[in-house]
Amino acid sequence: MDAERDSMIRKFQKELNAGTVSLVLLAMLERSPEPMYGYEIAKGMSVGLGGEAPVKQGTLYPVLRSMEGNGLLTSRVEPSVSGPPRKYYSITDHGRAVLSDWTAAWARTREFVDATLEGDGG
Amino acid sequence: MDAERDSMIRKFQKELNAGTVSLVLLAMLERSPEPMYGYEIAKGMSVGLGGEAPVKQGTLYPVLRSMEGNGLLTSRVEPSVSGPPRKYYSITDHGRAVLSDWTAAWARTREFVDATLEGDGG
Repeated sequence: MDAERDSMIRKFQKELNAGTVSLVLLAMLERSPEPMYGYEIAKGMSVGLGGEAPVKQGTLYPVLRSMEGNGLLTSRVEPSVSGPPRKYYSITDHGRAVLSDWTAAWARTREFVDATLEGDGG
Repeated sequence: MDAERDSMIRKFQKELNAGTVSLVLLAMLERSPEPMYGYEIAKGMSVGLGGEAPVKQGTLYPVLRSMEGNGLLTSRVEPSVSGPPRKYYSITDHGRAVLSDWTAAWARTREFVDATLEGDGG
């Protein structure tokens, strides 16, 4: 793998993540029985999403703040036994409705991309 | 569908397209037996990718220029019988190698997103 191809993969993965990080974040909070804090969410994401460019906490926090600002999430701050207070996020009813819309948009985009890659779409 | 949800869908689709437009464009040129010009590519894409936000030619041209600048595409200008000269794009060998990398990155991301949406990933 030459450096130029490597740089093109990183660029592409970053662009892909711009959309998918919000979707995965909302889906993780929807299925979590408990509110989650930033580090837990980042850890869960980095395991799977884009091995070439794991999700950094620095990437995640602005997304969490923006989603809270848009009413998709709520948060509460709680003391931690092992360090500074933690901000726990939960999904709102509006967030659940938006997750349902985004899941449908994701499915449409995924089907079109896959059809094009298989050579029978477009 | 309220206006707020509608605006969230458009935002999400735009973010998703940032990555997928480059991938689909490269795949379309790879499977096309002939070089294609901008309008042909835009038309092929708008049919399928993100019904909520069809790909505008104004979105596509900077992507084509950037991909040519990165050596993924080459172009040649040819006169048209029905209007101004057209710029026809073809994929390069480097573009084919990058398409193969991007296809693998897309598959990984797709699998992770789908696993999270189904509640068994993360």
